[in-house]
Amino acid sequence: MSAFLIEARSSETKARAGRLKTGKGTVKTPVFMPVGTLATVKAMSPEDLVECGAQIILANTYHLYLRPGCDIVELFGGLHGFMNWHRPVLTDSGGFQIYSLAKMSEITENGYAFQSHIDGSRHLITPEDAVNIQARLNSDIMMCLDQCISYPATENEAEDAHRLTVSWAKRCREQKTRLGELSDGLLFGIVQGGMYRRLRELSAKALAELDFPGYAIGGLSVGEPRELMYETARFTLPFLPEQKPRYVMGVGRPEDLVEMVGYGADMFDCVMPTRNARNGQLFTAAGTININNSRFRTDTEAPEPGCTCYTCRGYSRAYLHHLYRNRELLSCRLNTIHNIHYYTDLMRRLREAIKNDDFPEFKKKFYDKRDLHPPKDKN
Amino acid sequence: MSAFLIEARSSETKARAGRLKTGKGTVKTPVFMPVGTLATVKAMSPEDLVECGAQIILANTYHLYLRPGCDIVELFGGLHGFMNWHRPVLTDSGGFQIYSLAKMSEITENGYAFQSHIDGSRHLITPEDAVNIQARLNSDIMMCLDQCISYPATENEAEDAHRLTVSWAKRCREQKTRLGELSDGLLFGIVQGGMYRRLRELSAKALAELDFPGYAIGGLSVGEPRELMYETARFTLPFLPEQKPRYVMGVGRPEDLVEMVGYGADMFDCVMPTRNARNGQLFTAAGTININNSRFRTDTEAPEPGCTCYTCRGYSRAYLHHLYRNRELLSCRLNTIHNIHYYTDLMRRLREAIKNDDFPEFKKKFYDKRDLHPPKDKN
Repeated sequence: MSAFLIEARSSETKARAGRLKTGKGTVKTPVFMPVGTLATVKAMSPEDLVECGAQIILANTYHLYLRPGCDIVELFGGLHGFMNWHRPVLTDSGGFQIYSLAKMSEITENGYAFQSHIDGSRHLITPEDAVNIQARLNSDIMMCLDQCISYPATENEAEDAHRLTVSWAKRCREQKTRLGELSDGLLFGIVQGGMYRRLRELSAKALAELDFPGYAIGGLSVGEPRELMYETARFTLPFLPEQKPRYVMGVGRPEDLVEMVGYGADMFDCVMPTRNARNGQLFTAAGTININNSRFRTDTEAPEPGCTCYTCRGYSRAYLHHLYRNRELLSCRLNTIHNIHYYTDLMRRLREAIKNDDFPEFKKKFYDKRDLHPPKDKN
Repeated sequence: MSAFLIEARSSETKARAGRLKTGKGTVKTPVFMPVGTLATVKAMSPEDLVECGAQIILANTYHLYLRPGCDIVELFGGLHGFMNWHRPVLTDSGGFQIYSLAKMSEITENGYAFQSHIDGSRHLITPEDAVNIQARLNSDIMMCLDQCISYPATENEAEDAHRLTVSWAKRCREQKTRLGELSDGLLFGIVQGGMYRRLRELSAKALAELDFPGYAIGGLSVGEPRELMYETARFTLPFLPEQKPRYVMGVGRPEDLVEMVGYGADMFDCVMPTRNARNGQLFTAAGTININNSRFRTDTEAPEPGCTCYTCRGYSRAYLHHLYRNRELLSCRLNTIHNIHYYTDLMRRLREAIKNDDFPEFKKKFYDKRDLHPPKDKN
């Protein structure tokens, strides 16, 4: 039986609403996953996340493998006990972080050899290791080890990376099977192929043959122009098996999520709501506000009037401005609560719109309020 | 009718348990007041404070006067609305901070002239101003402007400071009367006089004549040897009117609180539980632990086994160690929750011991567990 059930489809777009069953409960899609790199979503407690409506969080395998190490997390039976979060956790494979953070990383057919960005210690991670590590973290959704490439990349480079990623995906799949009951996590395949339609199609089809319970698009938001990101997501998503959950990794801004839900994406993660919160940026229906702006000094309004989040229910822009200006710790938490609530609530309303089959109308209103226009592709 | 009611007295010591009525509710004493300098107890939300058992917090007048300024706080009807804390707030007068933080502060019969430690702007604060500012902050317990002196100070210096403090106390009292219904705060007098018994007695008696609803001992914990601090508190407390609440300012360590409750003190504030938390130090019945210590890396126990605080209910030493090592924001909050809970719970248990008239037994157990000994004065 599939872990993913599609409950509703938008008749005029490719958007869909579904439910993804994991060992730690069911996730309603479309869903946004806050990023909890080091087994903590920065400035947030698990209760804060629940209060914000977060259903599932992402944790970074590369970081946790280095600090505190799998042996520590295993003492608690996995990430849930370690960090006191009892809803699902998705872990990335570590590939992207090795590519972007590690010193002297070297890629071979066998895996990644790299030096820790913290202490320079040497490590080798094979596809099998990536699965084992995620199983030790007791991940509910684990990702295959993939090879990320920079933008721009030649078609040859992209093709090599795609081939290696597919061959690793196969090894990950086999390792997952070998683990048997040692892990009840769902292993997702990751489509690579740069910005090349031909390669994305090849990659998606090769992975589909391996019959993963879910698929992700990797290699987006790596420096390409926004239009190209949209285009690549738009042509790649239909190549992924229609009945399986589709996860667009590392994306993005609220409008990116709205667009990609329209292309048929179900899952997202991004550091934007949490990182921007710590820099004083708050997401609102009308766009982003910077709480550091001195016009908020005397502003007694809630950060976003009408918002039902904890922060907007109890605090004013003037108070958040004061906390931010004085670098008070509570500033990070209150801003993050608002931003994560904004993202999860946007997903909730998107889901509702899909179920009511008025996604296009929802999208129109979304852009009208922001005084923005949809990207040129007219979707 | 007095705002303070003594409910129980220890038969063998001077300890007492009481209730102090304020405009924002009743405070049970002995009480510890967490410090919320800039209208936020660092890393804590108001709900966190309530969960920890905090009944009243302290805010710093000097800091709030400079940032965000009284005009902003007034837009919210005072500190409670501004910071979303609806229990009582005590504000200090600003005297100690002007003395310790301001640049080029100059003291005259009329008040303090000083330059802001932030932007160098020039200010003059008279005793009347100090009361007005605290009234604008809607303080529930306000403090008279006092002159702090360093340790050591000659008897002449201490006597001058005591005289000025008393004359200012009179002006504060008059200003408070002038404000009438503009403030329902309780104005406390502050006893000065350095470490000189004669001056402390003079100061206490002069203030008692002004009939304040409460009295504080200022000028302790300013660098004097610990024995001298104990001695000064011990001889000064009995000079204060017996029926009024007695507040020992800026003190201190858990054992200091236990001692001073035995001398007849009712109220305390100190940055120790909050500041030390941010530095990884956790208070426990057995003494302080430093969560940064690598022996906690694999320790799956609660920070203090048996403790009922939010942190100890959900998290391990290994997780707190991991958060602290990685400078995660949640580290500050979880550590602070534990420490404030430790302090408020210590006060709650002290109060219970007084009501059961077994304070000496409580004190003995307190020291036994910590493997410490009471100070030499044998009280």
